[in-house]
This record gives sequence, C-alpha cells and structure tokens, in this order.
Amino acid sequence: MKAEIISIGTEHLLGQIVDTNAPYIAQKLALLGIDVFRKTTVGDNQERIAKVLKESLERVDLIIITGGLGPTEDDLTKEAVSKVLGKKLKLDKEIFNKIEQRLAYFKKGIKKGAFKQALIPRGAKILNNRIGTAPGILLDKEGKKILILPGVPKEMIVMMDEEVIPYLSQIKDKECIVSRVLKVWGIGESQVEEKIADILKSQSNPTIALLVKREGVCIRITAKFSQDKIKEKIKKTEDLLRNRLGDYIYGVDEETMEKVVGTLLKKKKLIISVAESCTGGLLSHLFTNIPGSSTYYQGGIISYSNDVKSSLLKVPYELIKEKGAVSAEVAKEMAKGVRKICVTDIGIGITGIAGPTGGTLQKPVGLVYIALSTPQGEISRKFLFSGNREDVRWKASQTALDLLRRHLIKKERKKWSLNLK
Amino acid sequence: MKAEIISIGTEHLLGQIVDTNAPYIAQKLALLGIDVFRKTTVGDNQERIAKVLKESLERVDLIIITGGLGPTEDDLTKEAVSKVLGKKLKLDKEIFNKIEQRLAYFKKGIKKGAFKQALIPRGAKILNNRIGTAPGILLDKEGKKILILPGVPKEMIVMMDEEVIPYLSQIKDKECIVSRVLKVWGIGESQVEEKIADILKSQSNPTIALLVKREGVCIRITAKFSQDKIKEKIKKTEDLLRNRLGDYIYGVDEETMEKVVGTLLKKKKLIISVAESCTGGLLSHLFTNIPGSSTYYQGGIISYSNDVKSSLLKVPYELIKEKGAVSAEVAKEMAKGVRKICVTDIGIGITGIAGPTGGTLQKPVGLVYIALSTPQGEISRKFLFSGNREDVRWKASQTALDLLRRHLIKKERKKWSLNLK
Repeated sequence: MKAEIISIGTEHLLGQIVDTNAPYIAQKLALLGIDVFRKTTVGDNQERIAKVLKESLERVDLIIITGGLGPTEDDLTKEAVSKVLGKKLKLDKEIFNKIEQRLAYFKKGIKKGAFKQALIPRGAKILNNRIGTAPGILLDKEGKKILILPGVPKEMIVMMDEEVIPYLSQIKDKECIVSRVLKVWGIGESQVEEKIADILKSQSNPTIALLVKREGVCIRITAKFSQDKIKEKIKKTEDLLRNRLGDYIYGVDEETMEKVVGTLLKKKKLIISVAESCTGGLLSHLFTNIPGSSTYYQGGIISYSNDVKSSLLKVPYELIKEKGAVSAEVAKEMAKGVRKICVTDIGIGITGIAGPTGGTLQKPVGLVYIALSTPQGEISRKFLFSGNREDVRWKASQTALDLLRRHLIKKERKKWSLNLK
Repeated sequence: MKAEIISIGTEHLLGQIVDTNAPYIAQKLALLGIDVFRKTTVGDNQERIAKVLKESLERVDLIIITGGLGPTEDDLTKEAVSKVLGKKLKLDKEIFNKIEQRLAYFKKGIKKGAFKQALIPRGAKILNNRIGTAPGILLDKEGKKILILPGVPKEMIVMMDEEVIPYLSQIKDKECIVSRVLKVWGIGESQVEEKIADILKSQSNPTIALLVKREGVCIRITAKFSQDKIKEKIKKTEDLLRNRLGDYIYGVDEETMEKVVGTLLKKKKLIISVAESCTGGLLSHLFTNIPGSSTYYQGGIISYSNDVKSSLLKVPYELIKEKGAVSAEVAKEMAKGVRKICVTDIGIGITGIAGPTGGTLQKPVGLVYIALSTPQGEISRKFLFSGNREDVRWKASQTALDLLRRHLIKKERKKWSLNLK
C-alpha cells in the first residue's frame, strides 16, 4: 500500500510553524509497513488544495490530510475535498450537537464556526475527535482512501492512535516495518561506527542507521518482516550491537537518561541530592521530570554564587580561593556538602564554565567537573564539553546522570578508581 | 516571484526526522516578499525527485531544494536535476581540492565520496559552503532559478544566510513581507480575541494572526509593503494592540520571559534567589539559561521533600503539618527563607502538585502557590494550571517569572495587595 501525506496551512508556507504532524504520521505508517511516497504542503487555498489532492490520487492508494478543519473562513480542506470527489457537504446534526455541547462545556458560547465544523461530505465516515471539535473524516474514492485529520498536533495524535491506526491495521499489507532505537552516551558517532563497522556493513534487513541527537548517538534498527518473525530478527541484531557497545547503551526507544537512572535508584532504594553550579537547576529539573521522582530525589541546591557554595554547602572559602570554583576539589565538596545537608545516600556536585564568557586559557568554556559523594567517599571527573552555553549545560547534566547510572550498575567502579583522582 | 521548496530524503518519509529546513527557508523567503506556494518532500529516488522538480518548474519561478548532496550512493539530487535540465555532471577540480583539504583537516582521510560531491551540473554557479563539504548549486532554466542546498541544517542555514539571501535580494520583487510577534502571558486565546476583536476584524494589511504556543498567546503582525513604509505600518498596528493588552504583552519576537525578567533585574540592580518544590529546578534553569545571569541570580534551593523545606528553608514543621506543603503560607515561608539564606533582595517560592498523582479533591493536580518575598513583605498567589505534569511545571515557572516581571514594572502592585492574601 502506497501513501502520501498532505499538510494544509499557509502558516507552513510562511515558515511560522514546524510541521511535526507529517513525521508523526509517517512514523506510524512505517510501523504498519505502509510506504510513504511523498509529502506535500499547501496553503489555505481551495483551488490549490484540490490540485494537490487530484495529483496524489493519481499516484497512491492512501492519502492522509491534516489541517484546514477549523471553524474560520480560512479553513477550506473539506470544501476542496468535496469538490474533487463530487460529494457535497451537508450538516451532520449529531456532530453539530456534540460541538455545541463541547463549546458550552468550555463556556465559550456557541460560535458561528460550529456549523462550519459540522459540515461533512456525503458518504463520509466520521472519525471521533475525543479532545477537540473538528471531527476526522474518512472517504473512499474507487477503493482509494482519503483520511482527513485536524492540524492541531494534540488532536491529530489522539485520532491517529485511536482511530486511524486500528482502521489501517485492518486494510494494510501483511509485512510490517518495526524500528528499535538503542541510545548511546559517552562516545561519539565515529567511535560507535568504528566499534560496529562490520555489523553496519553486513546488514541489509534489519538495516542499521546512526543518528546523532541531543540525547546521544541513536542506533536505529529497522526490520521489514512478517509479524511472527520480526521481533526475533530485531532481537538478534540488538544482541550483536549490545555485545560491542556494552554499557555505552543506556536506553532504548523513548527511554530518557533520567528515566533509566530513576528506575535504578528506585530499585536500589537509594536517595539522592544535587548541588549544581553551571547547570543551574537543569539536572534537578531532569530528575524531577519523572513522575514519582520524590521517592528518590530529596532536594537540591543551586550554588550559582561562591557565597552560596560556602554558606549553604559548606565548601571552605579558602578551597574556592586556592583551587578556583571550577575544580575537582570544589565539585567533591559540593557533592559531599549536599549529601550531608539533605541527608541522602548519594550527592552529586557539578561546577563548570558554561560560557559564552568566563573562560580562561587554563579553564576554558566547556570545562566541567562532576563529582559523586557516597558513604565510600568522593570521586570526581573532568570534562571538556563543546558547543554553546545550552550545549555545555545539557551535556554536563546528561553526563552527571550517566556517571550516576554507571555507579549504580557498578561495572565501571574499578576503572574509575584507577583513572580518577 | 513565486517559489516552491523541495526537501529530499527517505528519512523524512519514514518520519525519522522533523523538517526544520523548509520552515527556515520559507521564513526567509517571506521576509523577502517571495511567496511560497508549495512544499514537497520526496525520498532518495532519482526518478521521483526528477518528477517533483519537473512539476514544480511548471508552476513557479524559483525552486529551493535541500538534501541529497552527500557523498553516499543514496544521494541523488544532482543526478536528478542534471537529467531534468539536460545538463551533464562534470568534476569541478577546485571543489574537489577543497573537499580533499577539508577532509584532511578533519583527519578523516579522503573518502571516495569526495569525487561524487565535486560533481557539478554544467553551467551551474557554485555557492560556497563554508562549514561543510557539499557545495550549493544555482541553476537557471529559461529564467527560472533552481537553488540546491545541503540538507544538514547547520550548513543549510549558513548558506541560506550568506549566499542565497544576498542573491535573491537582487532579483526579487520590490515589496517585502515583515512579521513581528507580540507575546502574551496571563490570559488565554479567547480573552485576547475578545479584547482585540474589532482590530482583528478590520485589519487586512498588516494582517493579525493569533497562535497559541508554549510561551503564551503569540500575536503575529504581518505586513506587505515597500521597504520605506513597512516599519511604520507595523508600528501603528502594534501600538493599537499594546493599547488594548497593556502589561499582558511581555515580549516581542524571540524574547523569552526569562530574558525580559533578567534585563529588568539587571537594570534595577536587584538580586534574586529561588525556592522550588513542584517545578523541581525548572525556574532556576530558566533564569540561568541567560548568559550573564550570575549578576542577578544568586542561587536556589529545590526543597522537594518536606525535610528539606524545614531543615534548609526553615519553614516551620508545624506550619507544613497544619496548612499542608502545598499552601499559600508555605509558599510565603519558602520565599522568605530562601531570600534570607541566600541574602538577596527578592525571594521566590513555588509549591504545588504537578501530578499525575498526588492530587486530592481539596488540592487537585495543577494547584500551585507562587510567592514573592521582598523587604516589604510577602505576597502569594494561587493558580490552577491545566495539562499534564510537564505543562503544570512549565506554566508554574512561566507564571512565577511573570509575577516577578509585574512586580518589577510595579503597575500591578496595587491590584495585588487588594486581591491577594
């Protein structure tokens, strides 16, 4: 089954928004084994929408359209589709009542747009929109399917997941495409490539692709097989990769570093606290992103000034003066201090220079010390992160989480005590 | 001048990446007054790329293509374009030498792809790529212009800014399109709409559009005039809107709330500290996002547990027991405590229930108290934010910044002391 995606809205053509709907839909279609051949974006113009749709109908069997279902005069998707298919729009009373109720629920009164939103092409199947007013629409043109979804990403996602995917699962071809992403932190793309060069070369199905993202190097395994074989095929490739990359792999698919670390802390019943300088709250923010993090995250101190470092965290002023605020010694004292003050099993200390200013020859922008304090003592590691302020802060936070992760899985313990002061 | 944008790459059609190139290009073209009529995405397939290009050439005068200029066999853009225009590819020795030098510089050795990347269609003008190996290409087909840029966003942006825009500025039409965004916090879209309904209705050039984003309601003013008139026209509309919305407008264009607040703090030479519970470090993270924030942000305490609230922030344990950790009283004590401990002019306290669990009938998920402590005393405000955990934390942080902003511009001072406990 071949598909195309059409995104409608002049805001796209003015570059005012980034289209996240089309990639979401494309991903879901890929998982179903449906090939997407083209994506087209067109403005809120009835004639041009109609033209794009006509062209697509000549090429593929499935067309998913998003946008232009709103209540204003700019919204012309249904009008265009109705014209191309020769199916007149008529008021759907049930939908109209639903919209009326919904608007009343939100105390917005009945807007004139309700009528417009309840117009449906004759013969169309209606797809329920649980969280918004614009209903989705499914149309058939000589066996070719046209699906129209709202452009609001939240609504589109719910309808795609709840209405479209179950529908397409029934009518799609038999082979499916499944992807699994292994996430790596601590080594770069070229190092990953080196370690798995022969595997990369010899694979065709599943394929392996490397993508460098904010959360690290992502290794995407993609397989196209029948439903009964696909899991085993992916597992086999994953095992090959894990064998080479070991603990550098910190998670899979949607797992974030903070999620992985949180799960480990919970399992080991350990409680942590955090002392941050250059990351300014980002590490704590990541920890507390996870629902239920209050069971292992006790609290944190953002010691942005030296005064706070010494008054709150009890880092000796002389030490800061002698070694500098950005030093292994201060990082250790911060970790130790916060662990003591917050009464936790583990303390983390981060101090560094995020930039863009504040760097010197001896201590350049990007220099960051990260320390862990445990009942067994303190360790500290030195890093030099590249990039701008945001990059340095992000990498420092991720690396702190990764150090903690490695501490919790213990394998790196021995290596550390040799490498680190 | 009419334009289309073509993005090339199978990864787009699998939904593996979000296309940020096309919106960037569209924005820049809009600023030049060039209308974009369509965006098309097609996979790494020579025939299909050629088909899309042929169709576009029939519709518009300017086509900007991104992607498919890489060194691998998948990269087929030049091959497709060369076929459509009937202009054979030939090796450009200068480009080849440049790539060779560049790769040597990065110590990657000479890859076989260098030869491929140095193939240029006959008669093409070469656009310099200052930060990568793939050169950009400018072609002319009977007066119609085709520009090909690399798909790597960093490279595309540099080439767009340094090569394409100067070139297009020379050949474009005279009128230009300029946008300006006013950012609103504290009221929703429908309230904004109500306040400016008549202005919205009567405007045609400049147009006014409302967009709900994470950072608030964004009011985009877009004007199309000649260079000499356009600024004045936008200013006039902006004045009309500011007159209605007053202090609800916190910034323009790329200005963030933390940037605006930071600038005010710097100007007034005030120093702040932050005590966060439910926001878990996000507010401090936002403050310290701004380079130079160490001049006004002293430090913060993330009192995620009640123990930390009482031991570090000196919130009386009895008060927490009596009023609950999520209460106006505790928020005030947190703000007061952190102001005292960090020795700052202003202290902020936030306590609330971010969810998804932890809510009760009396204190539901989304309930947040935000307090400010100043030498004049403490004030606290109660909010009920909608959405998931991430939404609640985000809105709480933004609202805390907004409260501080309003405090700093003082206008709301009187209203507060009447409304708030």
